[in-house]
Order: sequence, then C-alpha cells, then structure tokens
Amino acid sequence: PQNIWNKVVEKANKAKKMAKDDPRKIIHSLKVGLALTLVSLFFYFKPTYDGFGVSAMWAVLTVIVVFEFSAGATLGRGLNRMLATLIGSSLGFGAHWIATHSGKTGEPILIGIFVFIFAGIVTFVRFFPEMKARYDYGLLILVLTFCLISVSGYRDDEVIHMAHKRVTTIVIGSIISVVICILICPVWIGEDLHNSIAGNLEKLGNFLEGFGSEYFGTSEGGQANNTNKSFLQGYKSVLASKSSEETMANLARWEPCHGRFRFRHPWKQYLKVGTLARECAYKVDALNCYLHAETQTPMEMRMKIKDMCARISSETGKALKELASTVKTMTKSSKEDTHIANSKEAVEDLKCMLKTGLWEDALVLEIIPAAAVASLLIDIITRTEKIAESV
Amino acid sequence: PQNIWNKVVEKANKAKKMAKDDPRKIIHSLKVGLALTLVSLFFYFKPTYDGFGVSAMWAVLTVIVVFEFSAGATLGRGLNRMLATLIGSSLGFGAHWIATHSGKTGEPILIGIFVFIFAGIVTFVRFFPEMKARYDYGLLILVLTFCLISVSGYRDDEVIHMAHKRVTTIVIGSIISVVICILICPVWIGEDLHNSIAGNLEKLGNFLEGFGSEYFGTSEGGQANNTNKSFLQGYKSVLASKSSEETMANLARWEPCHGRFRFRHPWKQYLKVGTLARECAYKVDALNCYLHAETQTPMEMRMKIKDMCARISSETGKALKELASTVKTMTKSSKEDTHIANSKEAVEDLKCMLKTGLWEDALVLEIIPAAAVASLLIDIITRTEKIAESV
Repeated sequence: PQNIWNKVVEKANKAKKMAKDDPRKIIHSLKVGLALTLVSLFFYFKPTYDGFGVSAMWAVLTVIVVFEFSAGATLGRGLNRMLATLIGSSLGFGAHWIATHSGKTGEPILIGIFVFIFAGIVTFVRFFPEMKARYDYGLLILVLTFCLISVSGYRDDEVIHMAHKRVTTIVIGSIISVVICILICPVWIGEDLHNSIAGNLEKLGNFLEGFGSEYFGTSEGGQANNTNKSFLQGYKSVLASKSSEETMANLARWEPCHGRFRFRHPWKQYLKVGTLARECAYKVDALNCYLHAETQTPMEMRMKIKDMCARISSETGKALKELASTVKTMTKSSKEDTHIANSKEAVEDLKCMLKTGLWEDALVLEIIPAAAVASLLIDIITRTEKIAESV
Repeated sequence: PQNIWNKVVEKANKAKKMAKDDPRKIIHSLKVGLALTLVSLFFYFKPTYDGFGVSAMWAVLTVIVVFEFSAGATLGRGLNRMLATLIGSSLGFGAHWIATHSGKTGEPILIGIFVFIFAGIVTFVRFFPEMKARYDYGLLILVLTFCLISVSGYRDDEVIHMAHKRVTTIVIGSIISVVICILICPVWIGEDLHNSIAGNLEKLGNFLEGFGSEYFGTSEGGQANNTNKSFLQGYKSVLASKSSEETMANLARWEPCHGRFRFRHPWKQYLKVGTLARECAYKVDALNCYLHAETQTPMEMRMKIKDMCARISSETGKALKELASTVKTMTKSSKEDTHIANSKEAVEDLKCMLKTGLWEDALVLEIIPAAAVASLLIDIITRTEKIAESV
C-alpha cells in the first residue's frame, strides 16, 4: 500500500507540474466540463424541447468529439462535421429513395452495393495528403451519415424527419462547442505556431551567442559554469519540429481573424521560416559536436582565430535573436541587417587571416576541428541571411 | 469545362499513381467497404435479430470509427472502445443511481455536477503524454459513454437494458472490424516500422557509398551523370522521421504475434536505432553541403586524400547497408564488423598522412572544406559503431 501511495503522490506531482507549466490545460478541462454539462442538461430536460428524443444524444456526442484544445481545431472539426452531415444526409436520402423504389428484393442488394462503393471511394480519398490534412474528419462523418441514413429502413418521410433532426442536433452541438471554445479563454493555434517559430529562432540565437565563449574559453572557466549551459541544449528541440509545425499550420488556417492575425494569415510563410531554421539547426548541431569532440585543436592555435570566430558567432546569434523579435512583434527592424553585415565583415577578416597562413608550423590534423568550426560558422551566416529575407 | 476536365484527369492520374505506389491503400478501401456493408445489412435485417433497434447504429458507428489502415491501430482502437464503453457504462450507471435516489430536485443538479467533474478530470488526464500515446481514444469514449448513460433519464432497469445493448453492439462492431482488418491482407504497422528503420539505414549507406566518387570525381564526370543522383537526396527523409517512427512504435505495441514478430517485440529498440540513424543523417547532411559549397578545395589537393576518404566513406556505407540487412533479416552477420574495422584502419592511415603535413604549401582557407569532410567522415564512423552496437 505504501508503494501505491507513493505512485499516486508522484502522479499528482506530475499533474501539478503540468498544470503549472501550461494553465491553459486546466482551463480547457473546465471548458469541456462546462460544455458537456450544458448539453447534458439540455438533453435531460428534453420535455421542454419536444421532438428530439434519441437524436439529442447526437448533440452530446458532437460536443465530445468536436471540442478540441485549440480554437482552430475545434472550428475545423465543427465545420467539417456540420457540412459532412448535411451532404451525407442528402446523399444517403438519395440512395435510400432509389433503393426503396426498386422493389422488395432489389432494396437490400442495392443498398449493399451503394454502401460498399461509397465507403470504398471515400476511404480511398482520405489517403490524398491534401484531403487528409484538412478534411479527414469530415470524410469520416460523410461515410457515417450516409450509412446511417441510407440503411435506416424507414419510409421516405420518416427518413427525412430523422435526417432533419440529426442535422439540427449536430449543428446545435457544434455551435455550443465552438462558442464556448472561442469565448472563454480561447487557445489560438496560430499564435502558438507564431511563438514556436520565434522561439526556435531565439534558441538558435542563444546557442550561437554562447558558443564563442564556450568554444574558446572552456579550458579556462573549467567545470565551474557547467550549471547554466542549458542554452547549449535548447536548439535540440528545433531539429524535430517539422511535423508539429505542419499540423499547427493546418489547424491555424481554420481560425478567424484574432488579435494581430488576419483570417488567411500567410501561415505557409511560417513553414518556410521553420524549414530554414531547421537547416540552420542541423549546422548548429554539427558545431555542438565540436564542443565535445575528442581530437581538439590546441588552445593556443584556437586563440589566433578566436576574435573573428567569436565575433561571427555572437553577431549571427544577435541577428537571429533580432529576427525572432521581428517575427514576434511583426515589425521590420533594420538591426538584424547591421548584425549580418558585421558578421560578414568578420568572415572576410577571417578569410584574409587564413590566407596569410597563420598556422604554418602546425599539424594539419590539429587544425581540422577549428577549421571546420570556422567554415560552419561561415555557412550559418548564409542560412541566417536567407531567413532574414523570408521573414 | 475544359479546365475542369483537365483537373479531373490530373486528379485521376494522381490517384492512379498513389494506388500503384501502395496497392494496400486500394485493398484497405475495399476492406472498409466490405465491413460496412456487412454491418449495414445486419442492421437492415434487424427483424431477424430482435432487440437491437436504434442501438444497432452503434455497430455501424463503431466500424467506421475503429477501422484503421493498420492492424495495430484497429486493434488499439477496438480494445480502447470496448473497455472504455464497459467502464463508462458502469460508472454512468452508478452516477445515475445516486442521482435518482436523491429526490426530484436534486437529480439534475447532481447529474450536472457529476458530468462536469468527470469530464473535466478525464480531459485533463488526456494531456498526460503516456496516456495520450496509447489511451487517448479510450478516454474520449469513456466520457461519451458516461454522459450518455448517466443523463439518459430513464428508470434504473431501462438504463441497465440500454447499457447492455450498447456494449453488445459495440463489441460486435469492434470484433467485425478487427477480424476483417486482420484476416484480409493485414497491414502490420510493426512491419512498416521495421522496414522504415532498415530503409533509413540503407539510404544513409547509399549516400556514403556514392559520396566518395561524387566528391572526388565531380569535376571529371561533369554534368553528364546528373540523372541518377537520387541516392544523394534519399537521406533527407531520414532527417524528419522522428514523429512518424514514434507513432508507429506506439501502434505496433497493440499488435499480436505475427510473422517474425512476437507480441511485446522490443519496439523501443527500434526507436533507439532510429535516433542514432537520425544523428548520423545530420552529419550526412553536413557532408552533402560540402558537395555544393562555394569555396572548394582545389581538386589536386583533394586527390591527396582521395584514397583514404573514398575508402572510409564506402566502407562505412557498406557497413550501414550491412546493418540494414541485419535489421531486415534479424540475423546477426559479422560482415559489418569487418567493414567498420576496415574504415577505422583507413581513418588511422588518413590521420597519419595528415600528420606528415601533405599540404604544406597550400592556403589554409582552401584546406578547410576537404579537412571538414575528412573529420565528418571520421565522426560518422563513430555513429555507425554505435548503431552496430544497438542493433
């Protein structure tokens, strides 16, 4: 029992930490509870709203399935569900009408064929990447509604009545979800995407700013400052950000105008910046390896290029951070251009210096790491420039 | 109209290409159609199976929602759905019983409070990463069933009857989905994961095998052999494979014993190999940049290290390909060890050569790219060794 109690305490601590890290998760849970309670009570007092009966449970179902964490996802699901139910009902009614007018024996055969063909085609369409990204849920509901309506086996007027009720309840459920999701502390996924892109640029900037002093100063500072080196690891999350950024951009396209974002905000541009940031992060990863490599260039030799490299690295870092704040505030500043210009100057100096052959008496093997660091830094500048262009 | 027709033709061609690339998609669509037709007709002939009525549509709904592309996903969803419905029904019945025994005025208040608290807590639990990975769908269904049962407003015995019918239909729907999914041309996601990991290693191997001749021979071969350079781009998909691999590993854990895979196959090991392969891919990406860099080491100078580097690169490539086939066939071969040993030998030779100072009269700036290539190759060997260990 002591063991179980420890586990419970551990889980509770985890939950507390999660809630502290992102209080929006708590608010979301409360919002879902509220929406469900509203719909449930609406369903419970159904005598006040005659004619819904069993169909009313579709409203409960809709709220549970449609209510997502972000406004974009909820809107997307709600619209998908409403539209798909409408189209599916009409098509289902058509299939039902044709089947019932073809005699007693033909009816089940025809219905079977219709369901088979329709389900097969729609399932195949769901594999298209562009459909999967935006309408996957709608296509699912399309098949669902089509089957339920066409197979129902009632008379024509009953089917119309049933379809009408179902569409109405689903619309009510979707609207309740969307309204509560957007009115009470909404979570805009577009803003999340915006912040994550800016955050990624900043992480890269932090690394580069810190890299100079780290690479040319480690043997002096020693192990003492091991504690606050977290900035050197920050960039790692950038490496694997691709799929989450794509999902966010897809969902963000559903969101209406909010805050500083218009409807039809150029979300694709964010993806472009994200890709460039990722390419930059691959380079940064290579740089990071040289920090921990086994064969190192001796410190005296590094010192000769220290000034230039440290300057390149810190100026590039500053430029990236400047770009991050440009993205964040959506105002063009010219500071990043100066930083880039500065670091390019430093690159030219470095190149000149290397041409004069400063390491003439050194072993080639020992030069390699430092040389590679220098060339990677030069490379990163090019990437940074590209990012600056596309922001 | 001509315009629309063109678009239709274009889409049709795309669909045809997709079907050719992966015929399993066509088969899957047919399987969904078949499962739905079966359930629908079962529903249509409901007089033969008295007592289901409206509940039978839950079977249709279950098939549509549970039937996924891979066996692992279908099984996971089916089990989640069945278990969650069972638990949700019991809890819902409990809440309903307490509420109905507390008087006419207390009932709606109590039900509202129950729904609010239950929905809030479960929604919050869904945020836990380990719950999200495996039980997200089950938790959703848990809330759904709890709400529908507790709010229903029937008498106790009716509620039990309703809950019983619902559980039965959902179990029938889930079992139909799972059986059809597994019996007819099943798609094992575990096998997909297995192949994708092996494929990634092979892509890296291909790149490295080709890199040597590419880097030291480009200026000779010229633009003529531009056509079959696709192997140089293959590794790019490895860079962003993280999230898809994780999803696959999660789903694979649901799959029973099949083919050469046991139940509880060590899927986590695959993720480890995948991560190492990705780290290797970052290096390969850096290498690739030197193929297209602006400042290049002059060819004569490259020639001096050509033999070693080409050997390192091709041996490492061979080792990786050997590892890929080891993963694929799940049989340990010792060939990769020889390849790794060979390339390590070459590294030692290269290091010796560099120590003798072969480029004494050269400009440092021009050495850099070649030097960096050499050091990256040395680095990649270390990664390859690590991969070899963990396979």
